Amino acid sequence: MRFGDFGAGGRCNLKAMGLLEQTIGAIAPPDAAAAAQAAHRLDSLTKPRGSLGDLEAIARRYAAVRGDPTAAFGGGALTVFVADHGVAEEGVSAYPQAVTGEMLRNIARGGAAISVLARRLGYHLWIVDVGVAIDTTAEALPGVLYRRIAAGTRNVAREPAMSPEQARAALEAGIETAHAAAAAGATLIGIGEMGIANSTAAAALLAAATGLAPAHLAGRGTGLDNPGMRRKLEVIARALELHRTALADPLATLATLGGFEIAAMAGVCLGGAARRVPVVVDGFIATAAAAAAERLRPGLLAHLFFGHRSAEGGHALALERLGVRPILDLGMRLGEGTGAALAMSVIESALALYREMATFESAGVSEKIG
Amino acid sequence: MRFGDFGAGGRCNLKAMGLLEQTIGAIAPPDAAAAAQAAHRLDSLTKPRGSLGDLEAIARRYAAVRGDPTAAFGGGALTVFVADHGVAEEGVSAYPQAVTGEMLRNIARGGAAISVLARRLGYHLWIVDVGVAIDTTAEALPGVLYRRIAAGTRNVAREPAMSPEQARAALEAGIETAHAAAAAGATLIGIGEMGIANSTAAAALLAAATGLAPAHLAGRGTGLDNPGMRRKLEVIARALELHRTALADPLATLATLGGFEIAAMAGVCLGGAARRVPVVVDGFIATAAAAAAERLRPGLLAHLFFGHRSAEGGHALALERLGVRPILDLGMRLGEGTGAALAMSVIESALALYREMATFESAGVSEKIG
Repeated sequence: MRFGDFGAGGRCNLKAMGLLEQTIGAIAPPDAAAAAQAAHRLDSLTKPRGSLGDLEAIARRYAAVRGDPTAAFGGGALTVFVADHGVAEEGVSAYPQAVTGEMLRNIARGGAAISVLARRLGYHLWIVDVGVAIDTTAEALPGVLYRRIAAGTRNVAREPAMSPEQARAALEAGIETAHAAAAAGATLIGIGEMGIANSTAAAALLAAATGLAPAHLAGRGTGLDNPGMRRKLEVIARALELHRTALADPLATLATLGGFEIAAMAGVCLGGAARRVPVVVDGFIATAAAAAAERLRPGLLAHLFFGHRSAEGGHALALERLGVRPILDLGMRLGEGTGAALAMSVIESALALYREMATFESAGVSEKIG
Repeated sequence: MRFGDFGAGGRCNLKAMGLLEQTIGAIAPPDAAAAAQAAHRLDSLTKPRGSLGDLEAIARRYAAVRGDPTAAFGGGALTVFVADHGVAEEGVSAYPQAVTGEMLRNIARGGAAISVLARRLGYHLWIVDVGVAIDTTAEALPGVLYRRIAAGTRNVAREPAMSPEQARAALEAGIETAHAAAAAGATLIGIGEMGIANSTAAAALLAAATGLAPAHLAGRGTGLDNPGMRRKLEVIARALELHRTALADPLATLATLGGFEIAAMAGVCLGGAARRVPVVVDGFIATAAAAAAERLRPGLLAHLFFGHRSAEGGHALALERLGVRPILDLGMRLGEGTGAALAMSVIESALALYREMATFESAGVSEKIG
């Protein structure tokens, strides 16, 4: 099945009311009444109005997405999707493709950055192989879930990275991971990824979603040199040109430009929103997933937090175009969900302040003059 | 004793080798060898070089200040100094002076923002009354240390806020708090404050330290209206003019423009550096303390972290002028050490990554191509 199966210029017409369509249909807008109650409570707490800045906006959004004016926190989950990219054969990454599988092992064994942060911050780590070139299923890696769609996508510079069925399977892997995390008690879910060459796919997707030029979006990823950077930009331009007819349809765009792990993260965004669990977006690659999810379900961005402004390429520009303000700006460009994890800790602090601070009345503190 | 006691234009000549002079004399520069070892280790960890951004700079600085290439973390302490300001009688705050004492109680009883954050993040809270107008010594407030220098400073718009002896006593209260926190095992100390009208003192001090105009520095504090803001700017201008002869001397400047809690925070900066314990500076008021400490001991800034960019007045400008980059930028303007507390948690994460991540060699991950 190829792009003939997508309605031309319209919504995808794959089997109606699959998990994807059910999920999209189940997404309700954030709860404005809960947000208003949260705003009221924030103004009663022993601090000048608005003086907690972004932390106040965070508490309001969390209450609204959860539909819970108490802003109770059940726990945090970090979902990390790992997959390979056929486009790696074009020499668009500073690291060999083997690193994806090697890092899957490293994440599982506790040595990767995200492993350290999940441990330190107390977040359950959901590691999902959605298509790594090296098959580690026989290795009994601790905590790894296998939802392998293929041993990597195809080379987007030559053909669509994924088939529509593959894109759907990857999205559904993400949706199901969101459901599993929510069922386990998580009320906040971070998304992250690992996949050599995935910043190429992400830049192409963000170009398609925002209309920004690839040269303004693409960055050096894990540390490309100048010739590599030129190849990367050529490859993105070639892919956008080759697949231009697919780009009118949101699902076809995601399928064509690819990334099993990107589609899976988009699935978490949708699944989280359907479960009223806010999702915290990591950096450049995760933002491409969020933008793809927003195209599949306009308005979805209101259910998300953007964890940080990455140092990668045009992430700042992409965030601006999406009209979102990230929580942190630490010059990070590692991925794996590391920026999301740190932001989740800030969100937790915002919620603790919201729930636990005394009010002017309860503490006997005088209010503002006049 | 007044300003005749300070050497004109030179260093203060108060009794030599008091605790203040001993402390200043004990401060050694950060350990460059430890920083180099940290940089080497960072490049061996399973991530693209530099991809942890500011977190890498944080780990290097922590190792250098501690003189410890292992970057071991013993615990965090939050020191919060509370005092009143005579200048409050000029109508430069949106809240009545009684709020300082009321908030001291609220902090001690666990209802203030900093109480919540200290609890959530596991930092010991050192609450020190260095001169609140309301005397709560008989109230048995939990955890409050009394180092009351006076029941508030004098009105800086009319006379020096503190005598030189008072300034020294406040500095020494801070130095001793740093020693106590370090002796209790803290390897990272945050500074924060509460004191109605203290943003007036802080703006005056920052103007004196940076040469920036008060109008570019002063902000609305807890929420001043326009007439209040005009009064505040007039008062700062009057104070700087009235006391201009004192401003050539660092200690005289601090004494004159005042703030018991500001001097105490400057003391923590000095005491922390002398103990090789990095100090995390909160927002606008704490930055005035750090700038005052830097004038007392040039080079001190290298021992500090700046926790966040506050939304108050010209904090961004002041940080720029000091040549420092804050860790967070969350639009907060509450004080109490709240921004420092959140930044300390980020620092702890940076240290955990530094210590616990696998190396390329230990994890069997391939290095960069070429």
